[in-house]
Amino acid sequence: MNGKPIGERLALLTDLYQLTMAACYFDQGMHEEATFSLFIRKYPPHRGYFVAAGLEEALRYLETLRFSEDDLAFLHSTGLFSGKFLDYLQGVRFTGEVFALPEGSIFFKDEPVIEVSAPIIEAQLAETFIINAVSLQTLIASKAARSFHVAQGRPLIDFSLRRTQGPDAGLKVARASYLAGFQGTSNVLAGKLYGLPIFGTMAHSYITSFSREIEAFRVFARIFPGITTLLIDTYDNIQGARKAVQVAKEMEARGERLQYVRLDSGDIAAISKDVRKILDDNGLEYVRILASGGFDEFKMAKVLDAGGKVDSFAVGTKMGVSADAPYFDCAYKLVKYGGRPVMKLSTGKVTLVDKKQIFRRYDETGAMLRDTIALRGEAMPDAAPLLQKVMAGGRLTRDLPTLKDSREYFLSQFALLPESCKALEEPAQYPVDLSPGLQDLQTRVEREIHQRELGES
Amino acid sequence: MNGKPIGERLALLTDLYQLTMAACYFDQGMHEEATFSLFIRKYPPHRGYFVAAGLEEALRYLETLRFSEDDLAFLHSTGLFSGKFLDYLQGVRFTGEVFALPEGSIFFKDEPVIEVSAPIIEAQLAETFIINAVSLQTLIASKAARSFHVAQGRPLIDFSLRRTQGPDAGLKVARASYLAGFQGTSNVLAGKLYGLPIFGTMAHSYITSFSREIEAFRVFARIFPGITTLLIDTYDNIQGARKAVQVAKEMEARGERLQYVRLDSGDIAAISKDVRKILDDNGLEYVRILASGGFDEFKMAKVLDAGGKVDSFAVGTKMGVSADAPYFDCAYKLVKYGGRPVMKLSTGKVTLVDKKQIFRRYDETGAMLRDTIALRGEAMPDAAPLLQKVMAGGRLTRDLPTLKDSREYFLSQFALLPESCKALEEPAQYPVDLSPGLQDLQTRVEREIHQRELGES
Repeated sequence: MNGKPIGERLALLTDLYQLTMAACYFDQGMHEEATFSLFIRKYPPHRGYFVAAGLEEALRYLETLRFSEDDLAFLHSTGLFSGKFLDYLQGVRFTGEVFALPEGSIFFKDEPVIEVSAPIIEAQLAETFIINAVSLQTLIASKAARSFHVAQGRPLIDFSLRRTQGPDAGLKVARASYLAGFQGTSNVLAGKLYGLPIFGTMAHSYITSFSREIEAFRVFARIFPGITTLLIDTYDNIQGARKAVQVAKEMEARGERLQYVRLDSGDIAAISKDVRKILDDNGLEYVRILASGGFDEFKMAKVLDAGGKVDSFAVGTKMGVSADAPYFDCAYKLVKYGGRPVMKLSTGKVTLVDKKQIFRRYDETGAMLRDTIALRGEAMPDAAPLLQKVMAGGRLTRDLPTLKDSREYFLSQFALLPESCKALEEPAQYPVDLSPGLQDLQTRVEREIHQRELGES
Repeated sequence: MNGKPIGERLALLTDLYQLTMAACYFDQGMHEEATFSLFIRKYPPHRGYFVAAGLEEALRYLETLRFSEDDLAFLHSTGLFSGKFLDYLQGVRFTGEVFALPEGSIFFKDEPVIEVSAPIIEAQLAETFIINAVSLQTLIASKAARSFHVAQGRPLIDFSLRRTQGPDAGLKVARASYLAGFQGTSNVLAGKLYGLPIFGTMAHSYITSFSREIEAFRVFARIFPGITTLLIDTYDNIQGARKAVQVAKEMEARGERLQYVRLDSGDIAAISKDVRKILDDNGLEYVRILASGGFDEFKMAKVLDAGGKVDSFAVGTKMGVSADAPYFDCAYKLVKYGGRPVMKLSTGKVTLVDKKQIFRRYDETGAMLRDTIALRGEAMPDAAPLLQKVMAGGRLTRDLPTLKDSREYFLSQFALLPESCKALEEPAQYPVDLSPGLQDLQTRVEREIHQRELGES
């Protein structure tokens, strides 16, 4: 956000074990290439797809990763590390290669979102930050896409900042929800940093600080005639709507137009119909209704199914923390080291070995049909490879797309996802299979490990 | 974290409406004192208390709040604000008074955690950040306290960093969980910034990068003999335990002691008993068992109830995002403006008016008995006032306690909370009532608003 580049600022934002393991690799002279694969193991309830986001942050981190004098002094103070290792750490930079899904991509469980190949210390040190960055933005984009789907073109605004899990999450939520189809955010700093459209209304405190509600309305309309949204539920929605009508008429007399009234409590479906009628009966068909207050895709669907007359939704907390699924089972697993495909066998947790590629097939209408996870080197005719090489030798191999471009990409891809996979509850499971090459290797590696580590034959 | 102070760095981390409302107040010459009250409206399911945290961050923000030239240039670029208002904003500082619960306090729904009194623009601008800061750390401390309660003295370590909602949340989670009784964290930067004890083990990737598991164990034990925790489930817990025994014996021969073995998957209650037996049968009674993998207070209780032989728990994602309750219904409401107590009437959302105090009574054993929310000026004999004046004239009125002191304070207070209120499911509801003075004022204000705004008599 300011000052030092992110990779330097956050080099210590890692788990201690990344550093102790690095010390072991260093001691053993283990500097061969390791490939780590980032993927999500399973869907939360009622989910059937993910939206990739957070790649740019991860790559900026890798580009600038370095330990400052101050970081090294802290590590020295722990008494855990040898001077020789800390000297080595001072020179560490990320020099590896990254394959990744572009931000805005639709992907599915077990599919690699990012594969990092680098000398093992470099790839291992980056684990904690990369998971953190990619899983948060992917979490939010995946949640926001559901609201976008339900809203059917109605503008959605991110109002979540006050209840996101920290200031940084507030920024990332604004970014990721915009990526996934939102129109903008109330978050001013996000507007500044990411160039997002910013929107605002007024608070109940604003209304109650005036001795009369209508005075609060009048003052705002006079100062911000181009962007006035009147919050009408402070005392009573219906009486509030009548006062809004009065102020809208006063605005008309000045050649201005009230933009929105905002409903924030009560039975929104019913109230919005009453308010719509009051507006229309007064010739204010052009005044739109914004609804807020605990909205997520479920509440939005309910209000719209009940015929609610809502033109735009402010979506807050439940999207901003992905309330029904506040984390993904996102893993970053070693799949290859020194040319040797590897996996762990821990109960119930399978990792797909080696460097991979995802191939996607489309039907004759252009809709997504089926994905195949394959070995990186495999070719699949009539299928599009999804992972792109975005970094080599620690440097970006191409300019990153703008956020607007990534949003366009999301919109184009989301349109190709079958409707049945977008259902809010019990969505259809999009078919993903493994290539014969990957299946064979997977079986062979598993058998070898059983023989080697468990003495089975 | 670096560079500019937080209030300057994050002045724009606010909702746009805070700035448009401020412009209205400015235009109207509304600079009278406003009091905002921060409180939580209701308990999430199965909750019956909260642990206050995040105050220090909120106060540091208030102390240093100012708009930079760059911020003002951005606001100017939106075309929304007059030059006169932006000039005014440049000089804005927080000059108000803050009453607050010390960090580590136990509190209940509807009780004010913080009350901010300042010229309305200053108090309003701070809303978004203060809610964000206090609600995140309070969320995490309240969640972590439940694990602390269940663990009954077993050390708990925060392992959540990779899946917290952003890097900043990762830091705050480490801080807030330590405050609520955790022993430390895996988060190295949190260790540096907050002086927390840091802990680490090893990853499956570390094991799989070696051609044999036992070699991975040996290398680590040789380099970090004082802090070795062997992760034994990569291929098979039992075989892993046997290899750990072998390495522990090798360590003994060098006069060293293996600290822990770590279980990370499978039926932890059953496996821990088997592993305990293997260790004990080999004279390794001193080697402790650390369990990780999806732990929260519920899973911990289940494993301990089933007789699991676990000495320490690493608690990750579910605590780090407060998975069962990923947000609190935390509000910052205007309760007084220009000497006039105010409230909104919006459906189902009641705000307690005016400046307040919380009084707490204890029984003869010292246990917490009952709280009363009263007007700030009221006196209650035999009851302790909980809100402290921590800021006046925009400056701290006292040194903030150290994090360690706040942790001690939490431990002392938590010990006084009745056990029935700590139950993991359906906890007893701690009694909180309103003083007669507050009740009377509440009724009177509500009646006046009905008359004024709704034309009722």
